[in-house]
Amino acid sequence: MEQTIGIGLLGAGTVGGTLVRRLVGESSSIAAKTGLAFDVRRIGVRDATRPRDFEVGAGILTEDTQSVVTDPSVDIVVEVMGGLDPAGDLILTALRAGKPVISANKELIAARGPELISAAAEAGVPFLFEAAVGGGIPIIRPLSETLAGESIDRVLGIVNGTTNYILSQMDDEGAGYADALAEAQRLGFAEPDPTADVSGADAAAKAAILASLAFGTWVGSDDVYYEGITSIDADDIAFAAGFGYRIKLVAVCDRTDAGVNARVHPMLVPEDHPLAGIRGATNAVFIEGPAIDSLLFSGPGAGGDPTATAVLGDVIDAARETLAGAQVAPRIRFGNGHIVPFEEIPTEWYVRLVVDDQPGVLASIASEFGKAGVSIRQVWQEDVDDRASLIIVTHGSLESEQRTAIDSLKGIPEVHDVASVIRVLGPET
Amino acid sequence: MEQTIGIGLLGAGTVGGTLVRRLVGESSSIAAKTGLAFDVRRIGVRDATRPRDFEVGAGILTEDTQSVVTDPSVDIVVEVMGGLDPAGDLILTALRAGKPVISANKELIAARGPELISAAAEAGVPFLFEAAVGGGIPIIRPLSETLAGESIDRVLGIVNGTTNYILSQMDDEGAGYADALAEAQRLGFAEPDPTADVSGADAAAKAAILASLAFGTWVGSDDVYYEGITSIDADDIAFAAGFGYRIKLVAVCDRTDAGVNARVHPMLVPEDHPLAGIRGATNAVFIEGPAIDSLLFSGPGAGGDPTATAVLGDVIDAARETLAGAQVAPRIRFGNGHIVPFEEIPTEWYVRLVVDDQPGVLASIASEFGKAGVSIRQVWQEDVDDRASLIIVTHGSLESEQRTAIDSLKGIPEVHDVASVIRVLGPET
Repeated sequence: MEQTIGIGLLGAGTVGGTLVRRLVGESSSIAAKTGLAFDVRRIGVRDATRPRDFEVGAGILTEDTQSVVTDPSVDIVVEVMGGLDPAGDLILTALRAGKPVISANKELIAARGPELISAAAEAGVPFLFEAAVGGGIPIIRPLSETLAGESIDRVLGIVNGTTNYILSQMDDEGAGYADALAEAQRLGFAEPDPTADVSGADAAAKAAILASLAFGTWVGSDDVYYEGITSIDADDIAFAAGFGYRIKLVAVCDRTDAGVNARVHPMLVPEDHPLAGIRGATNAVFIEGPAIDSLLFSGPGAGGDPTATAVLGDVIDAARETLAGAQVAPRIRFGNGHIVPFEEIPTEWYVRLVVDDQPGVLASIASEFGKAGVSIRQVWQEDVDDRASLIIVTHGSLESEQRTAIDSLKGIPEVHDVASVIRVLGPET
Repeated sequence: MEQTIGIGLLGAGTVGGTLVRRLVGESSSIAAKTGLAFDVRRIGVRDATRPRDFEVGAGILTEDTQSVVTDPSVDIVVEVMGGLDPAGDLILTALRAGKPVISANKELIAARGPELISAAAEAGVPFLFEAAVGGGIPIIRPLSETLAGESIDRVLGIVNGTTNYILSQMDDEGAGYADALAEAQRLGFAEPDPTADVSGADAAAKAAILASLAFGTWVGSDDVYYEGITSIDADDIAFAAGFGYRIKLVAVCDRTDAGVNARVHPMLVPEDHPLAGIRGATNAVFIEGPAIDSLLFSGPGAGGDPTATAVLGDVIDAARETLAGAQVAPRIRFGNGHIVPFEEIPTEWYVRLVVDDQPGVLASIASEFGKAGVSIRQVWQEDVDDRASLIIVTHGSLESEQRTAIDSLKGIPEVHDVASVIRVLGPET
C-alpha cells in the first residue's frame, strides 16, 4: 500500500538535480523502506530551456516559480534554489497554503528563520532544513529533537568544507594561503569566487542556525561575529603545531548564565581535541552538555549527493507527518534569551608579533597586556636576522580586553607588526 | 500555553531515577524549549519500599506494574526496567491502549522488535527507542529518519563501552585481559558479572537493531553471530600495533546484493580508521553509503545521564506527535530482505600460531591455507626460545573457508597452538 506524494522543486542545480535523479532511480528502495512513493510534479528554474542531467516529463520544468508552490498537485515543496529572494516569499506562500517545506537554504533560514518557522507552526505543517548545516551529517534533527531534553552548553563546528580543506592543505604541504586556495579551486573544493566561504560568512549563517536550535534562543545572521581565514599564514600553522595546536575555522556557539553567543573565527584547536583531526573538506559538529558530556558528528559537509540524502530524509519525514493528517506542532520554540555581545565573552589569544630583538621589548609588551587586564600564559621567541618573531598565548580574558591589549601594542616603537591574532580553544574558555 | 503530559515509568534504576530527577528539576527549561510540561504519575518497581534518590508523591511508586500502563492519567509509558519479561507484555498492553511507548531495552527490541513495532503501527502511536543503542549518541533517529533516503551499505559500531574500556586499558597499559577487567570493575565500567558485555551479547542485540534500521530488513538477536573479548591477549594487542592496527570489539552490519548480515567480534582496525581512535568507554557508530560516503557519530554509550537524555528526547517527540492527535505512521517498515549466513561473508583474518622454529613449517601452513582457498597477505615470525610466534594475515576469503583453514592447521604436528584468531577490517572486506 503505497501513497504517492507530489513534489514541487524550487531550483535544479547540483542538489536539486541529484534529488530528482534519486527520487526516480531509487523509488523502489525508498518505497520498500518507507511505504511512500514520490512524484516530481513541478520544478521551478531560471532557464527552462537549459540542458539538464536528469529527465522529466514535458511541462514539469517551469520558469514560473510561483506555480510550483501553488500547483494543487504539489504536496511538498523542496527549496534548493538558495538566496534570500524569491526563495523566502515562495516558502511563505507554500507554508500558508498548508504545504510542508524542506529547505537547504542556510542564508535564508539564518536571516528569516523565526518568520518561516512561525508560518509553519500556524499552518500546522513541517518546515525542515536538515541540509542547511553540515550537508549529509544528521545534525539539525539530533539538536532539535534527540537532544531537546539536554541543556546544551556549547556547540563547536567545522561547518565549511572549503576553508577546512584549505587549512588542511596548508598544514599538510606547508603551502601559503593563496597556493592552497588555488589548489582548492582547481579541485572544485572552492568556488571561482570563494568570498562567502573564506570570509566566514557561510559558516556564520550555519553558526546562527546551530546556536538557535541548541539553545532555544533565536540567533540571527546579524548576531554572529565572523572572521575568515584569508590572513592565516603558513608560519602560524607551523608555530601552532609547535605549541600542539592545529588551526581550524570554528563556529563557536555557547551558553552561559549571561546568555548565548555565536561566532566564527579561526582558532588554535589542541591536537587532542576531536575537531583537530577533522581533515580536508569533512565537516564536524562537537556538542557539549551536562548529561551527554560530549558528542561528535562528522561527515561530508557539502556536495550534491550527501546534501540530497539530507533533503530526502526531510521529505520522507514530512510526507509521513502529512499523511497522518495532523496539525503538526513545531519541533522547537524560541524563548526570549539574551544574546551576549562577543566583546563580553572570555577568549584566549595567540598573538604573533614582529619586534626588534633588543632588551626590554618583552617588558613593554607585557606591560600593555597587563594594563588591559590580560595575563600571559606562554611566550616564545624566534630570531630572524635582527628582528624576532614573538609569540604570545594569553590566559582567558574578555574579548574586549584582548582587543584593547592588541591595539595598544601597535603604539610600542619596537613592535613592527602585529602579524597574526588568532583565538585559542583553551582551558579557560 | 503548556500542555501537561502524564508519564508512567516502568523501572526506576539508574536511568529511570535520573529521568525522574530531570523531569522535575529541568521542567522549566524543557517547557521553554518545547512548550510541554511533564508529570510523572506512576512508577512501577519491584520493591516500592526501597529508598530512592528521587522524591515523588505518595502512591506514585507501585509494585503493580500493570497499573502503570493501564492508569488513564498516564499518557506516555517509558520502559527502563530491562529484560524480556514482563517488559514486553507491558509494552504491548500500553501500545494497544493507544499509548506511545519509549523503551531503552535493546534486548527486548532485538528479540521482539517486529511485534512491538507492528503493535505501535496498528495503534497509530510512536514506539521509540533512541536509548537502546549508543546511550546518549543520537543514532536511532538519524538511521531511521535522516538517512531514510540513503542506501546504507555498512554500519560499523563500537557499541559496548565496557569492552572498549578494557581493550583501551590493555592497549595503554600493556595489561592482560584479567587485570584490565578487574580495573574496569573497580572503576564501575564493568559489572560484577561482566558476561553480557565481555561475551559480545550486549553488542549483538545492538547490532541487530542497527542492521534492521539501516537496511530495512529485520535482523533479530538470533541472526547475529557474536564473539567476545575474553580470549584477547596482550601479545595480540602489541603485535597488532606493530602491523598498524588496534583491536576493537566491532558490531559489523553489512548489505550486499546477496542480502544483509550483522555480527559482533573483535577486529583489527587500521590505525587511521576513525573507529581506531575511539578510546575508553566511548561508543561510536560509523555509517557508509553511496551518497553520504561515511559518517561518524561518537559519544557516551552508557550511563544514567546520557541515556536519560536520549529517553527524554523520545518522550518530547512522542508528546509532540500525540498532541497533534494524529494516527502516526511508522517511521520504518521492514521488507523481506535475505539474511546472509556469516559463513558466506568474506572476511580477512589475523592468526597467531605457536610453532616449532624449524624449516618447512611455513610451507606446511601455507599449503593448508591454500587448500582451503585462502591466500596469505602477510607473514611475520618472532622467535621465543625454541618456539616461534608466527603471525599470518590473510587476504579476503569466505568466513567458512577461513574457518576450514584454521581447523586444518591444528593437524600439523609442528603447530603447537592456534593462539589467536581475530578478524581484520581490511581492504577487501
